[in-house]
Amino acid sequence: MSKINRVLIVGGTHGNELIGVYIIQKFERYPELVHRSSFETVTLLGNPRAVAANTRYIDRDLNRCFAFSADDPRAQTEYELQRANEIQQEFGQGEHRPVDLIIDLHGTTSNVGAMLILDNLESFTLQLASHLSATQPNLKIYSSANSGRNQDSLRSITPYRMGIEVGPVAHGTLHADLFQSTEQLVQNILNYVDHYNNQGLPPIQPSTLSAYQYVGSIDYPRDEQNNLLAMIHPRLQFNDFAALIPGDSIFLSFDGQTIFYQGDAVVYPVFINEAAYYEKGVAMVLTQQKVYDLE
Amino acid sequence: MSKINRVLIVGGTHGNELIGVYIIQKFERYPELVHRSSFETVTLLGNPRAVAANTRYIDRDLNRCFAFSADDPRAQTEYELQRANEIQQEFGQGEHRPVDLIIDLHGTTSNVGAMLILDNLESFTLQLASHLSATQPNLKIYSSANSGRNQDSLRSITPYRMGIEVGPVAHGTLHADLFQSTEQLVQNILNYVDHYNNQGLPPIQPSTLSAYQYVGSIDYPRDEQNNLLAMIHPRLQFNDFAALIPGDSIFLSFDGQTIFYQGDAVVYPVFINEAAYYEKGVAMVLTQQKVYDLE
Repeated sequence: MSKINRVLIVGGTHGNELIGVYIIQKFERYPELVHRSSFETVTLLGNPRAVAANTRYIDRDLNRCFAFSADDPRAQTEYELQRANEIQQEFGQGEHRPVDLIIDLHGTTSNVGAMLILDNLESFTLQLASHLSATQPNLKIYSSANSGRNQDSLRSITPYRMGIEVGPVAHGTLHADLFQSTEQLVQNILNYVDHYNNQGLPPIQPSTLSAYQYVGSIDYPRDEQNNLLAMIHPRLQFNDFAALIPGDSIFLSFDGQTIFYQGDAVVYPVFINEAAYYEKGVAMVLTQQKVYDLE
Repeated sequence: MSKINRVLIVGGTHGNELIGVYIIQKFERYPELVHRSSFETVTLLGNPRAVAANTRYIDRDLNRCFAFSADDPRAQTEYELQRANEIQQEFGQGEHRPVDLIIDLHGTTSNVGAMLILDNLESFTLQLASHLSATQPNLKIYSSANSGRNQDSLRSITPYRMGIEVGPVAHGTLHADLFQSTEQLVQNILNYVDHYNNQGLPPIQPSTLSAYQYVGSIDYPRDEQNNLLAMIHPRLQFNDFAALIPGDSIFLSFDGQTIFYQGDAVVYPVFINEAAYYEKGVAMVLTQQKVYDLE
């Protein structure tokens, strides 16, 4: 691949994920922090109206708005569809200020620690992730590349992209340790890109990447009116990335009955009890561990 | 005092505090769980529109709406003021179905564990709290009696009342352990009231109560536009009820500077980093330990 010329760092794609919002404000106050000689860095508050309202979104999750047709009548009335169009026109490929790499900052109520989300498995992204993983052993790598999800996220407008997800942090709050983890990870990514632009691959560049690969999701037990019937089981709460074995406790009903995992394979759940996923029908995302060969 | 004739259990006073919401739904499905022979138990979803929208409130915090005049023009337009009026007319003193005791269920993003909130220090309430404290050693007792707050909360409509506050739990999520703690605490209160009605004070009735008494609150450092300049310091995060000593770390600025506690006395902070208090200008509530003599 050729050089990375422009990097976009986005916070507040979800308006109540405050760590990203305040990191963007910090970078806008001190642009030298994200300045690198070999590329331009741009910052963006993704959903300013949702930030002002301290809510995830106004009309629709902005991070699901980038595959709508401009002809869709909802594009005239819904704020996030208009905002998605603005962002596409500003930073999309073939537009006047295209970016090559997007780093999108998120927070979650689940216990993912510091996690890098890969949307695809092209080789620059895998190299970057494997370098970060080798230099930050606590960093988790999650690939949603095979999730079948539409290319409708904010970062889908550019070829190179990744999400940073930190947790547990309640939406509408800050968390100093996770703020610093996020900021450090952004710095490490910018440093990697700068080194790559100037000198190619860095000295520490493993030839494999160990990651958690999306294999599905599980919803909460619900009744016919879609009301919840159970909660995440106490043994699973905050236990993201731990092996979930067929027969393990997974939910606890409001009546106190344990519900067991019925799958036929060991999986590694992430996004366990993420607040924003209740409405999406996702109690947790299931992954399997996979080692990707980079050569 | 005379017998308690009617107890009201309220959940969803704040619509995104889901533990209370689902406990009320459970009690409404299985009313025998809260039935006692010596009094009537009534349940209420405090703010059903906010519950449906999965938000704290629609127009205004319902738990600050019970001191408005019916003549206030806002009472015609704001949902929570109308709802407060309905609740007052249904359950208030001198109305057709007055309740003697309100138990109001809440959740917080701060690490209070299971906490009983006392609004006043009249003797039945102190006796009940000291009994619960003796039989549940992990239970924390917090008194806001001297906070100077207006009598504007939902439970201010009745003479005997208490809040149950559990955390940390992100708003918009459930947490099975804290669900069970809340439910157990409700059961213990109902059992106490039933015993009191039938036989007077129970066998375990200490003559003192150790509690955390409100002494003030501290806001986040902010700029002139009211924007945050700092976060709760990592050493203080989730450290509710631990001694905060003058000179201890209290905030961490976005620039990485530690800000120290400037008070001149040891205090015990609670509600540290509660999401809903950012907009109220409260980073934490300060308390001091106090032993109340019940005799």
